[in-house]
Amino acid sequence: MKHIAIGQAGGPTAVINATLSGFVRALYKDHSLTFVCNGYEGLANKKFFHADKEIIENLLAHEKVPGAFLGAGRYVFDDKQIYHSVHNLRERGVDTLVFIGGNGTMEALQRIKEEAYRQSYPLQVLGLPKTVDNDLGGTDHAPGFGSAARYVAQATRDIGRDLQAMCNFEQVRILETMGRNSGWLAAASGLLKEDKQDGPHFIALPEKRLNPEWLLQSIEVALQDHGFALIVVSEGVVWEQGSQVEKDKVQGRSVLGGVSKEIEGMIKKNMDVMVRSELLGMNQRSFSGAVSAVDFEEAVKVGETGALWVTQGETDIMVSLQRSQHAAYEITYEPLLLKTIVQNGERSLPQPFLDDQSAYNEWLRPLVGFDLQTYPPPLKRGETTHVQSESK
Amino acid sequence: MKHIAIGQAGGPTAVINATLSGFVRALYKDHSLTFVCNGYEGLANKKFFHADKEIIENLLAHEKVPGAFLGAGRYVFDDKQIYHSVHNLRERGVDTLVFIGGNGTMEALQRIKEEAYRQSYPLQVLGLPKTVDNDLGGTDHAPGFGSAARYVAQATRDIGRDLQAMCNFEQVRILETMGRNSGWLAAASGLLKEDKQDGPHFIALPEKRLNPEWLLQSIEVALQDHGFALIVVSEGVVWEQGSQVEKDKVQGRSVLGGVSKEIEGMIKKNMDVMVRSELLGMNQRSFSGAVSAVDFEEAVKVGETGALWVTQGETDIMVSLQRSQHAAYEITYEPLLLKTIVQNGERSLPQPFLDDQSAYNEWLRPLVGFDLQTYPPPLKRGETTHVQSESK
Repeated sequence: MKHIAIGQAGGPTAVINATLSGFVRALYKDHSLTFVCNGYEGLANKKFFHADKEIIENLLAHEKVPGAFLGAGRYVFDDKQIYHSVHNLRERGVDTLVFIGGNGTMEALQRIKEEAYRQSYPLQVLGLPKTVDNDLGGTDHAPGFGSAARYVAQATRDIGRDLQAMCNFEQVRILETMGRNSGWLAAASGLLKEDKQDGPHFIALPEKRLNPEWLLQSIEVALQDHGFALIVVSEGVVWEQGSQVEKDKVQGRSVLGGVSKEIEGMIKKNMDVMVRSELLGMNQRSFSGAVSAVDFEEAVKVGETGALWVTQGETDIMVSLQRSQHAAYEITYEPLLLKTIVQNGERSLPQPFLDDQSAYNEWLRPLVGFDLQTYPPPLKRGETTHVQSESK
Repeated sequence: MKHIAIGQAGGPTAVINATLSGFVRALYKDHSLTFVCNGYEGLANKKFFHADKEIIENLLAHEKVPGAFLGAGRYVFDDKQIYHSVHNLRERGVDTLVFIGGNGTMEALQRIKEEAYRQSYPLQVLGLPKTVDNDLGGTDHAPGFGSAARYVAQATRDIGRDLQAMCNFEQVRILETMGRNSGWLAAASGLLKEDKQDGPHFIALPEKRLNPEWLLQSIEVALQDHGFALIVVSEGVVWEQGSQVEKDKVQGRSVLGGVSKEIEGMIKKNMDVMVRSELLGMNQRSFSGAVSAVDFEEAVKVGETGALWVTQGETDIMVSLQRSQHAAYEITYEPLLLKTIVQNGERSLPQPFLDDQSAYNEWLRPLVGFDLQTYPPPLKRGETTHVQSESK
């Protein structure tokens, strides 16, 4: 019997509780569990819960609930806090520390591991991946991303048809996605575009600096061809001359957001059109109505795999998802050294996907779900006057 | 055999094409159909389509597609345009004019009817309701509202759990809903709140002027009790000292939006918290992943009922939805005079619902769907330090 501490960190996703449930369900009968509240803050400040029957039952009932059941969030995790965290875990008699999170979490686990080693404390350490940005390297993708991508693809498709219907009133709409420094999520907006008339007519990604002339020109072409233009922009986009747009700075971490508003202003200055910018917002990481079935299943499986590896004594690794090279979509769960993840840093959208939306779509499609389809072609209303004068 | 012209007007909804499909499917085999593009603009400028087999097939394939298949939008519809519209319909040999829309559309139909009467043109006129704002009077509700309300209720519930998980980083979130001058949609955000800890902790409606002191106080109480505050505000809210917040003005129509941003600014000035405001945005009227099954069915039924009444020679009316007084939810479709609708004007959220969220929830629940449930109670993480120090 081991004493295992588990926590969640960073921004929540719609399936981070599925991973938690998968992990806890597999272990709670044979092991002692400590729940860590509010991510690293809980480690540093001993916000520990003994996992009694009632709490475990409630936790399992949250399997399909967004947010993070134990609390997650962000926290300044300096050497002093790491020292305290290791001390707190040791004091509590913890054998194993497991955290669900992204790049920052894997780095934190690695540092905790090193501090424990320094203190000759044989702490087993395991990371379980989650990120809506999909910027964790070494894994094909991470739980949370598929559902966020599904939301972005679906919302873009639907809002595009709405705009098209309104184009005698409103001509340009700009949707801003999450993604921080990588364009995986923004690029997902192109998944369900089939007809040329449908948007997005331009996708701005952090991987390519944004040239305002080029953007305006694309909008003009779309307006000319279709009477409206739908633009998608990642929050992390960098202007050709300039930098990322920060909404806020909290605890030293920049909160991105607002580039769509800047683009709206630029268009208003240059064109006589009605334009509206909108964030796709917090729904991307939380909307339960857009959870991908595959994403949910994989999230559970990541938790179960982590539980298995804990009992097998594995340490210093994260559970990664590896895609088989066969035609049919198939995932195996493989260990990845925390050290390697930290060394690799944030992963951007690779060049082949930047160059070819359909190659990206093919990769993305199984994560989002095959049930989500493109719409039938819209009515070509631009030609109505012409058709009408002939038919009379 | 009649020659029937049909169009869609105003802002689209997720189910306006369901009404169009229901109507067309019931009539296209026995009657001649003209499709009017882009709402009243199409009437005034003869943007007419003859409904051939191919277009009808495509239209029926759009039954579950958001946006407006024929185009809708807004248009300045003055006496001159009305004169032209009637002329155009008469020239084309139209017997019956049917439009799917909200208050503005019903008023336009009434004016068209009066102009046709003045010209001794026996035009049959019928309105089919749609609005996400639910401000059409005389009908229990209108298609489009149930799905929009479902989206708002679900997004609020989910974003609330996300915020709760992030509360060591971000403490206040403000969500802005549609609804123009009535609070039906904003009040729907309270549907899935059960636990006191869950948001929204304050809902600001257009029916009550907003006192900033009162709002700040509510936020402070929520912060004290739960560590975070989720606020929902209708775009149409009016400050106690001040007016509605306009985002834009197009064709003389004010585009509301931005009050959440003003509230964000006010909170930043008065409190030391991280705060974020977001529009729930265009998804409210278009997200296909939040369509209510009942709303969809009723939207189709409204179209079918309109088709039946057209063949029965009914005129100058709108199809209204009346709720039976029995305990079980049941709707009958009754005629309502266009004149009466115009006289009644926009409908606000009535006092009993303003006074009692649970009375409103009971009314709203069947429209949104019983499958959407409140979440199990969240972990009371505020007490963690206390619990932890005892358990040691």
